[in-house]
Amino acid sequence: MGRLYDKLAEYGESDYYPYHMPGHKRNMKGCPLAEYYKTDITEIDGFDNLHRPEGILLDLEKRISRIYGAEETFLLINGSTAGILSAVSCVAEPGGTILVARNCHKSVYHGIYLKNYRVRYLYPKISERFGIAMGIDPQEILQALESEKGIAAVVVTSPTYEGIVSDIEKIGQIVHAFHIPLIVDEAHGAHFSFYKGFPSGAVKAGADIVVHSLHKTLPAPTQTGVLHVSGTLIDRSRLKRYLSIYQSSSPSYPLMAGIELCFDMMEKDGGRLFNRMYENWEDMLGKLEKCNHLRIWKRQNVLAEGMKDFDVGKLVISTRETEWTGKRLYEALLKEYHLQPEMAGEDHVLAMFTVMDTEEGYGRITEALLELDGQMSMKQPGTGSGVWETDVRPETSCRIAEAIDAKTEWVGLSDSAGRIAADFVNLYPPGIPVVVPGEIYHEKMIFHIERWKRENLTVQGINEKMQVLVKCEE
Amino acid sequence: MGRLYDKLAEYGESDYYPYHMPGHKRNMKGCPLAEYYKTDITEIDGFDNLHRPEGILLDLEKRISRIYGAEETFLLINGSTAGILSAVSCVAEPGGTILVARNCHKSVYHGIYLKNYRVRYLYPKISERFGIAMGIDPQEILQALESEKGIAAVVVTSPTYEGIVSDIEKIGQIVHAFHIPLIVDEAHGAHFSFYKGFPSGAVKAGADIVVHSLHKTLPAPTQTGVLHVSGTLIDRSRLKRYLSIYQSSSPSYPLMAGIELCFDMMEKDGGRLFNRMYENWEDMLGKLEKCNHLRIWKRQNVLAEGMKDFDVGKLVISTRETEWTGKRLYEALLKEYHLQPEMAGEDHVLAMFTVMDTEEGYGRITEALLELDGQMSMKQPGTGSGVWETDVRPETSCRIAEAIDAKTEWVGLSDSAGRIAADFVNLYPPGIPVVVPGEIYHEKMIFHIERWKRENLTVQGINEKMQVLVKCEE
Repeated sequence: MGRLYDKLAEYGESDYYPYHMPGHKRNMKGCPLAEYYKTDITEIDGFDNLHRPEGILLDLEKRISRIYGAEETFLLINGSTAGILSAVSCVAEPGGTILVARNCHKSVYHGIYLKNYRVRYLYPKISERFGIAMGIDPQEILQALESEKGIAAVVVTSPTYEGIVSDIEKIGQIVHAFHIPLIVDEAHGAHFSFYKGFPSGAVKAGADIVVHSLHKTLPAPTQTGVLHVSGTLIDRSRLKRYLSIYQSSSPSYPLMAGIELCFDMMEKDGGRLFNRMYENWEDMLGKLEKCNHLRIWKRQNVLAEGMKDFDVGKLVISTRETEWTGKRLYEALLKEYHLQPEMAGEDHVLAMFTVMDTEEGYGRITEALLELDGQMSMKQPGTGSGVWETDVRPETSCRIAEAIDAKTEWVGLSDSAGRIAADFVNLYPPGIPVVVPGEIYHEKMIFHIERWKRENLTVQGINEKMQVLVKCEE
Repeated sequence: MGRLYDKLAEYGESDYYPYHMPGHKRNMKGCPLAEYYKTDITEIDGFDNLHRPEGILLDLEKRISRIYGAEETFLLINGSTAGILSAVSCVAEPGGTILVARNCHKSVYHGIYLKNYRVRYLYPKISERFGIAMGIDPQEILQALESEKGIAAVVVTSPTYEGIVSDIEKIGQIVHAFHIPLIVDEAHGAHFSFYKGFPSGAVKAGADIVVHSLHKTLPAPTQTGVLHVSGTLIDRSRLKRYLSIYQSSSPSYPLMAGIELCFDMMEKDGGRLFNRMYENWEDMLGKLEKCNHLRIWKRQNVLAEGMKDFDVGKLVISTRETEWTGKRLYEALLKEYHLQPEMAGEDHVLAMFTVMDTEEGYGRITEALLELDGQMSMKQPGTGSGVWETDVRPETSCRIAEAIDAKTEWVGLSDSAGRIAADFVNLYPPGIPVVVPGEIYHEKMIFHIERWKRENLTVQGINEKMQVLVKCEE
């Protein structure tokens, strides 16, 4: 069938006149994105239909399936969000119970809300050294599945935002022994298939559904992704139905062409590009060894925590042992050096690298970190702490949907102990919920939330009056 | 705050180095869409957050509110689909009842499925002359609301795909007398605000939620839209929650910049552009008067059917009185003249015009239609007919969600009479459902579906063995 982009470009240059949507008619001369508009069409003859692919889009999906070793693949143009919503929605009846990693993306919680599921949580292991969530211990999953009958599916995130990889193969074996499907949110791991130095991917490790975001770690447009499905535990017609529900009936062809372009690059030149990236990466880590205060996460640190693997490309810079907060380091990099990190946590900064980074990119952050490290001093022992090490596990009073759809009121955070949350409270990024609707506020959580606000971290779910939404008391 | 696109372009040219998503790092030299990638960023400092806008995106939303006269506006980057899903989802409790126009978009049905609503239908008036759905008669709404208590909201589509405008002001008055909200899917009417010759828009006519697709009739990228909300009948925090659920947590900045660019053009130059369009349009309609067999819909035809108004830009070419099917005319335009219409119906073809059409565009289709008209002859009276004139109103046996989630089986269409549908059957385009899950197949429907298949129209919901999905009998 040929390449989608070529066909779009050819159509854009042809004498075919468009009496169809989109309304810009590919005729945006003088517009800075004119080339984009030239390839922006709708489902006209010969260009297939994302929601019922039979031609050029199906071919692209099949090609991507082969790359990852999946049985079937679907293009996502509403981000991983649409993939995860669809995956979560298709695995259980309304009101069913699923087992999910607490550190999963909010779209998992949204799927739970939409389907009125009950939830059981898997709490990630907490690294004492780094004060942050690691991956999921397969033994925890076994215990959870043994202790409660009727769980319909398991959802885990691997790698995490910070690059921690759980043992998906072992997790898959455990989950499959209970004849239920495993969904892996591998949004941050779409690149795993392209280089031997990377962890192995969740599709090959046996997950039933794997969701990849493409723009996170590969050279693809924002809002693109793919969903892979394999095996017999997923009702595929149901999955497809949800994919059609959660994605625009007018999907963007340039986004789909951007997906193709990404895999063109990876198949043609991925080996060389990743090789170069790996060398630059190792070189940078070597130079950063000279830091006296900052600590850079390394693969061996993560393995020492019992995790399966650690991604290449996630530079996690810990300020945990210094007097600096993550936010302060982030601001210094941004304002003094014009280096824009991905995010600031309480006591770390995350910087992301892909095959598209230049040597300048590796060089500038290395120099900046070494300079800033020289300005720091170590923290007094015993001061400060991250929430995750407190290992807060709130009690659940009711289902998420029940709490969200209940009569609610705003109360001061400081008065919220004992009340049932009616909204999520997230520390953002990475947006992992500290409190989930239906859970009961307690003092420890309140203490930490207040501290984050003081440290000027982005806490979602609290208004400017320091109030949180709770269920009205009956 | 300045313009989003300018800020994106400036950031793309700055010395700020991106250690953040997306993974292409705006560094796609040599790629044909390189300019696109340069503006494709994530929620970094200064670029606001679509899901919690406070800066440049909120400013853009406020600007669009002012243009349409809405109280609040939200950008859509997952198409009108996301807007309609959110609107439908927020207006009733799970299991509630809503009143919807039968000819609404499938995303309305999807919202109904997700929320397990009961549905009451408003059947559009059928034009005897054109054999196709017109708009909704306000009196039908009044009767429906009077005959059943507890309806939570009303959903109508205006204009229709073919440009028929219902009397939204009168409908709004009726609906509001029952203290419930009116949702208008005005996906095809985003341009109404920009020219005096156009019908007036649904926001100003008093609808509580109005959803606009921007790429359909304005120069905006595919998959973009806006949702407007006004008045006190909508729970806005609930609406916002659903918008965040149904849209990617990594929204595309170029899509959002494309929305801005569209309104820049319209505010700066809309008057002149629409004036020119209007002149070209009137000129074309004048020339097409010479057709002896084809009939072109005109405003006075639609007004004569009792409808409120008819859009400019929807060229509906009826083959109803000729021996040609809509498909045959479509194929002739496409293959002989390289003119790509929007769609072929059973006995009409739809061609769409916007401000971006050239005089060549008007000229080529005019000449082609006059030539083809000369090759046609009139049909024998009494042969052939459209489904809509049969006025099929299937009986409902159960809720949509109940039928979809039931145990199902495939049966031959010819054996399906009396069985309960478990999937939609749509004639596509325009994708209006002929059968909705939970409805009972009867002979008339089967007859029409078989006929469409013979005429090679696209019928969704039937497999290649001419089977349809039905609920298993208990």
